[in-house]
Amino acid sequence: MLETLVELDRARAGLAGQLTTALRDAIAEGRLAPGTRLPSSRALAADLGLSRGVVVEAYEQLVAEGRLLSRRGAGTVVAPALVLREPPSEDSRGYPTPCHGSGIRPMRPGVPDPAMFPRGAWRRAYERALGAMTDADLDYGDPAGARRLRTELASYLGRVRAARVDAGALVVTTGAAQAFALLAAALRDAGITEVGFEDPGSHGVRGHLETHGLRLVPVPVDRDGLDVAALARTGVRAVFVTPAHQFPSGVVLAPARRSALVEWARRTGGLILEDDYDAEFRYDRDPVGCLQGIAPDAVAYVGSVSKALAPALRLGWLAVPGKWRAAVEARKTWADLGGPVLEQLAFAELLAGGAYDRHLRRARSEHRRRRDALVAALDRHLPGLRVTGVAAGLHLVVELPPEFDDVAVVARAAEAGLAPLPLSRTRLTAGGRPGLVLGYAATSPGEIDRAVALLAAVLGSGRSNG
Amino acid sequence: MLETLVELDRARAGLAGQLTTALRDAIAEGRLAPGTRLPSSRALAADLGLSRGVVVEAYEQLVAEGRLLSRRGAGTVVAPALVLREPPSEDSRGYPTPCHGSGIRPMRPGVPDPAMFPRGAWRRAYERALGAMTDADLDYGDPAGARRLRTELASYLGRVRAARVDAGALVVTTGAAQAFALLAAALRDAGITEVGFEDPGSHGVRGHLETHGLRLVPVPVDRDGLDVAALARTGVRAVFVTPAHQFPSGVVLAPARRSALVEWARRTGGLILEDDYDAEFRYDRDPVGCLQGIAPDAVAYVGSVSKALAPALRLGWLAVPGKWRAAVEARKTWADLGGPVLEQLAFAELLAGGAYDRHLRRARSEHRRRRDALVAALDRHLPGLRVTGVAAGLHLVVELPPEFDDVAVVARAAEAGLAPLPLSRTRLTAGGRPGLVLGYAATSPGEIDRAVALLAAVLGSGRSNG
Repeated sequence: MLETLVELDRARAGLAGQLTTALRDAIAEGRLAPGTRLPSSRALAADLGLSRGVVVEAYEQLVAEGRLLSRRGAGTVVAPALVLREPPSEDSRGYPTPCHGSGIRPMRPGVPDPAMFPRGAWRRAYERALGAMTDADLDYGDPAGARRLRTELASYLGRVRAARVDAGALVVTTGAAQAFALLAAALRDAGITEVGFEDPGSHGVRGHLETHGLRLVPVPVDRDGLDVAALARTGVRAVFVTPAHQFPSGVVLAPARRSALVEWARRTGGLILEDDYDAEFRYDRDPVGCLQGIAPDAVAYVGSVSKALAPALRLGWLAVPGKWRAAVEARKTWADLGGPVLEQLAFAELLAGGAYDRHLRRARSEHRRRRDALVAALDRHLPGLRVTGVAAGLHLVVELPPEFDDVAVVARAAEAGLAPLPLSRTRLTAGGRPGLVLGYAATSPGEIDRAVALLAAVLGSGRSNG
Repeated sequence: MLETLVELDRARAGLAGQLTTALRDAIAEGRLAPGTRLPSSRALAADLGLSRGVVVEAYEQLVAEGRLLSRRGAGTVVAPALVLREPPSEDSRGYPTPCHGSGIRPMRPGVPDPAMFPRGAWRRAYERALGAMTDADLDYGDPAGARRLRTELASYLGRVRAARVDAGALVVTTGAAQAFALLAAALRDAGITEVGFEDPGSHGVRGHLETHGLRLVPVPVDRDGLDVAALARTGVRAVFVTPAHQFPSGVVLAPARRSALVEWARRTGGLILEDDYDAEFRYDRDPVGCLQGIAPDAVAYVGSVSKALAPALRLGWLAVPGKWRAAVEARKTWADLGGPVLEQLAFAELLAGGAYDRHLRRARSEHRRRRDALVAALDRHLPGLRVTGVAAGLHLVVELPPEFDDVAVVARAAEAGLAPLPLSRTRLTAGGRPGLVLGYAATSPGEIDRAVALLAAVLGSGRSNG
């Protein structure tokens, strides 16, 4: 099979280099798909009429580059595409771009406005934390995080999200990203390698779970959220959900579905991974409490400050049911012996002094203005598009007419300086309406109107190209 | 086999609980060694005359506790002891204790004095960083770390450690701990599962590498450091070393050995993992440059601020040869999308403004006083003991007469409020003289004299009990 993919010039020197380049190109262009098992070096050498050393050298170079994986007993396989540092450049969760300075452009979903970051309050909280810091705080600490923060956080999550967590059960993580990495490792340790996943769902979280060795099984989402009956049919023993504000559709998991999901977990011993990623922000009513609060024995709860303060703080948290605690804490210990302590103490000060609540109130009211501005601008410039989901979070979704190619639309929008996310990129299975995920939290109302006018121009020209 | 380890009272209810407890005890007491493969639930149920559900329940509970690992196709095995959160409570590298507040007691190796932490300079650096911070700094950043810090660090490491690193090649990590976790994962991805390891060597690093799936192959250390000829005989393709100040022995890798080690790496394509853990501190002469500086193509270089500022900052770094870069950066990306940015910017300010150099000069002079005080106190209270290693770092080693049990001595010393490390705990193979690793950096000269007097009393009574 490989012979057809590889063209070597045997007259030229550097056959190993030629073979490496040919294989690298085949992987980059998708001709060798992730997971493809390569022939043994001996077999390929025979097929190509090369010495085995040439093939070994090429394989080793590509393994070192992360493009191939070599495991004893399993041979050499093409690495998952996501293992390479090429995360989607404008991901739904604002994942980092390999090149810097792409900036927070209008319509990029999942990022708060850096101009709203409470610099003064954060500086004062950090100073108070430094002042109150003991000698023991400077030592290696509890890998699960500073006790002071876990205490404040447990109280905050109980009060604001109706969570039921003990401080001792919380693990402070380097953003939600690390929480998912730890969960994935703990699931694998327990022999669980398949996880149900909302379809459409968060492309970012998907990358984390897949990179850490889990296979995702799509479970459809409808207007009531995750289809629990469909989940039950998959036979998986863990499932990822965003109950308070489904990403990207914006629907809320309906009460009957919540009960059914918890019942599924208790019946099967399954674990629910709840990503409470932007639930502080609901604009039309009080937010729905988190699922963890009604089933702490069945839910692994994940949150962070990335949507509420700033992704750069890399502060997240994780609370798991008792029987998962030792595994998750061990994984955290051996991942990094715990995260930086001083900013944990600063965030504890921010929570304790009420400054976090005040910041959230301000952000909520400003976000609501921006969402209203976006809805109004869509109505003005693109009156035919339907907005889905409840008034919450940092983004909304508009469906496009079926003849549009949302990836192409986003590429043209990027040329106009906009950064919406194509809805199709959040799907695990083919089909479904094209659409756009539009962020509004980081853009002022005036800019939002201009951005939508630009988008309308893109869509006007896009229909003919779509 | 298991039948002999498990005693069940079939008249009592809760057979699954009884079986769980029996297996847990057998693991804790070492009767079931790490790596032992357990029979299938079906086979064990048949052997013990239980229903299979009882065995499944016990296995699942112990998997959830991290005591067993269950992998598809590999069955159920006893987890490595270190996977459980029971790191040695007074480890050589000051690893965290599961219970808090153990404090920095006299003679604990590997921790700096928290009273020397430059609180004022750090606060000012953090404030400057906040003041200079741009909106983009608050976004998801480069997972490899803030560019500003990597630039300052590359320059610092070149100047102070004679390293040859580009800013772009550095990865900022959550302490050296995460650097070793990332390296271990990258090695495994490349099919390398065995690593040569200094014997005696760092128990802490050993835990990280083993927990992440590497098998350590002991390589003897003599007065010239790692025995490179012995390394070559092992056939491993990677090796862990502490060239500037071997942990724990305190010897420096001799010039001929440095050349031989680099030659080994180039001949075999092997990777040298260099832990430059306390090399800022040399008291009798200028420190030896790092090995990375003479062979950047063969050395993965690891450092941190844990010995120089405070472990709680969790700031470390890693520079790997070009062909390992993509794999390490991908592992970092999917571990946590990068560490907290603001304290990275603060550390960059500390480096740029010269405050870090000033702090190191002060710490170096104070450490030297403390080491001199320890050597003098040993001479006064325990004149028979030989101190090994060069005048450097945060600890020294004394050998004990062969009739002593250093673990028992340390247990008695702990009762007296002291926290030395038994030399035998740093050995991968049996044999060798008993001894003590004594930290001095976190204890004032006056306290040091009192501590050695206490230790002399312990040893005086210990010889008869030894």
